[in-house]
Amino acid sequence: MIVGIAVYDDVDLLDVAGPREVLTWMDPKVEVRLIARQPGPITTRDGLTMIAPFGFADTPQLDVLWVPGANPGALKEIMTGSGRDYLEFFKAQAANAKYVCSVCEGALLLAQAGLLDGYEVTTHWAFIPCLRRFPNIRVAPGTPRFVLDRNRLTGGGISSGIDEALKLVELLSSTETAQDVQRVMQYYPDPPVTSTLEEARQCPFSW
Amino acid sequence: MIVGIAVYDDVDLLDVAGPREVLTWMDPKVEVRLIARQPGPITTRDGLTMIAPFGFADTPQLDVLWVPGANPGALKEIMTGSGRDYLEFFKAQAANAKYVCSVCEGALLLAQAGLLDGYEVTTHWAFIPCLRRFPNIRVAPGTPRFVLDRNRLTGGGISSGIDEALKLVELLSSTETAQDVQRVMQYYPDPPVTSTLEEARQCPFSW
Repeated sequence: MIVGIAVYDDVDLLDVAGPREVLTWMDPKVEVRLIARQPGPITTRDGLTMIAPFGFADTPQLDVLWVPGANPGALKEIMTGSGRDYLEFFKAQAANAKYVCSVCEGALLLAQAGLLDGYEVTTHWAFIPCLRRFPNIRVAPGTPRFVLDRNRLTGGGISSGIDEALKLVELLSSTETAQDVQRVMQYYPDPPVTSTLEEARQCPFSW
Repeated sequence: MIVGIAVYDDVDLLDVAGPREVLTWMDPKVEVRLIARQPGPITTRDGLTMIAPFGFADTPQLDVLWVPGANPGALKEIMTGSGRDYLEFFKAQAANAKYVCSVCEGALLLAQAGLLDGYEVTTHWAFIPCLRRFPNIRVAPGTPRFVLDRNRLTGGGISSGIDEALKLVELLSSTETAQDVQRVMQYYPDPPVTSTLEEARQCPFSW
């Protein structure tokens, strides 16, 4: 089984690393690939450089497509700029993937590719108003960690990808496997501070 | 302010990426550096290659030293093998760092460097029996997310680093800043499965 995580410059680090950590503990037979337009270095939002070993051209049909988010400039570049080849890659893969997943604003990229039409989805809480611009998408109420609608699994902001990827482990394998991953990652979170989210009123960028 | 995250081959990805994500949202003036023996590529436990832009030689006094964990082979290499220069680096930095932190089995590396003697600490739940071999270390009861004892902040396994780094933001800045980071990361975790941890009976490796 191959899980392909799409990466691109200014992608958010934890949007990639959280799910990858979860999924690589699932089963040694599951391969988690970072895939960019072309193999090579990718620099995340916070300036970390990681290597994408695979490009679009050498990627076979994926079992799972995972699309992370980024800062607005990078999103816009893919949604309507020179990065539109990512949307084409997503469309080609989504047609036969077992699951199509996004975390954070990755949902906006899937939405722009038309891949969330007719589905109920979510995204980073501050970008939920952006999703409302797509008339055929149902936006899930509140700020859920993730939303599963048939084979579309969309997550909330950044850290949500960990909960969401654990759900994916449960879907692809079993609850017991997800519990095993939870144990090895010691994922019994307990944030040292508490806060609340206001409802976001407007999309923080345009495209 | 410079936070230095020590990296080495077979380091755990989320031990590095979780805290880095949290700390890079804290304040644009805080620099979070990945530091290896020498600048260059580091391959994590799960086969992801990231670039460490800094080496020991070009690292000034850090404000915060952060030591992540890894698989047992990599730990052993640093504790008693050819990686002992990492322990020397930790000792030199810890003498004047504001905070000395570990997550996961990074605590064993600090312990072997003598830097946890006289402190109460924790580590990945399955490796807690390893800590008990150090007679001058007090092992915190249970499997806490993190333990703060004066300027030593030690975390539990893998995912604990996110809670722990948020605590570090609170210590270095304020509760309000930590809440802001929590919001931007949408860190309101809610794992889709539940499980429990048994008490670990023996250290899973020797050194």
